[in-house]
Amino acid sequence: MINYPNKKKHNNRKIVSSANRGMNFESMINQTNDFYLNNDIAIIHKKPIPIQIVKVDYKKRSAAKIVEAYYKLPSTTDYNGIYKGKYIDFEAKETKNKTAFPIKNIHDHQVLHLTACRNHGGIAFIIIYFSTLDRIFFLDAKFVLEYYKRSKTSRKSITLKEIENHGYEITEGYRKPVDYLKVIDEHYLKKDA
Amino acid sequence: MINYPNKKKHNNRKIVSSANRGMNFESMINQTNDFYLNNDIAIIHKKPIPIQIVKVDYKKRSAAKIVEAYYKLPSTTDYNGIYKGKYIDFEAKETKNKTAFPIKNIHDHQVLHLTACRNHGGIAFIIIYFSTLDRIFFLDAKFVLEYYKRSKTSRKSITLKEIENHGYEITEGYRKPVDYLKVIDEHYLKKDA
Repeated sequence: MINYPNKKKHNNRKIVSSANRGMNFESMINQTNDFYLNNDIAIIHKKPIPIQIVKVDYKKRSAAKIVEAYYKLPSTTDYNGIYKGKYIDFEAKETKNKTAFPIKNIHDHQVLHLTACRNHGGIAFIIIYFSTLDRIFFLDAKFVLEYYKRSKTSRKSITLKEIENHGYEITEGYRKPVDYLKVIDEHYLKKDA
Repeated sequence: MINYPNKKKHNNRKIVSSANRGMNFESMINQTNDFYLNNDIAIIHKKPIPIQIVKVDYKKRSAAKIVEAYYKLPSTTDYNGIYKGKYIDFEAKETKNKTAFPIKNIHDHQVLHLTACRNHGGIAFIIIYFSTLDRIFFLDAKFVLEYYKRSKTSRKSITLKEIENHGYEITEGYRKPVDYLKVIDEHYLKKDA
């Protein structure tokens, strides 16, 4: 596989994705959001990690120093914002699994949150990165809920086949490592027109 | 002034607000958002405070303990979400000033963020709490930008009179200490119909 020094738009997914090697998935999403933001395409931010602050040291002359704090479970998803007047909400997840996405990677309250956002008229979804396969998919909250429900009584994961059938593969755009708005343009906003 | 033990809906603002005494402004907003969420009216959350984590202690058997971290400047506003299909974005600010709201209470990037959200089709605004007067106002991002620009060359605050003229006073609803969605219903969504 050729390792292109500059990230350019190629049709061959394998060549494209080689450029992403070494960049972690979160950085790829953040870089994409930065591109959207800097080009006034969309305003989508990652929410800060929720922290329970227990003790802060104000004694120092410099900035207040937090000396005891703990990670809290997020009550929502990691990303939200606005695109073409639409509310956007999603969670990004990575798996090394080659054949399925384990449902346990998403918290219960995140499934409920995505479902609620969808019911209120937002575009809500998860982005799944199969890191071993180097393939990225967009899966609507509707299907996330469906497979989440199934996991309570039956299969505890969503197969790659199911994701291929019900989701959309996300390709890389120029300076947009995970160009998920392209999926929204093609599969959500065209319908409205 | 009568101090009602239970918060009920009254027409008299002064009696209503007495129930809020002792509750800080952020709690009032959060309680309102909880009400909206629990009654499936809107999905609006406060974003976590952004923290720069420097050192984490993983040695303990219990949860990972953050032992060195610092507050970061927020890059966006504190609150966002969805209501009746509309993207909602706002910042809540409190002032003890009785005659004007000092512009320096809002960061530059927050003004830009609110303006961008508005330009992309969202409903973006600030909520100003005049704590001494015990009056709460909703001011659209359009006016925030206008007065922010003015502050660069002229007056560094928005007068109460200007806020009264261009904003909307927010009243308390039943179990909704800061019922800002009522303003949106009356002044934003009716126009669309």
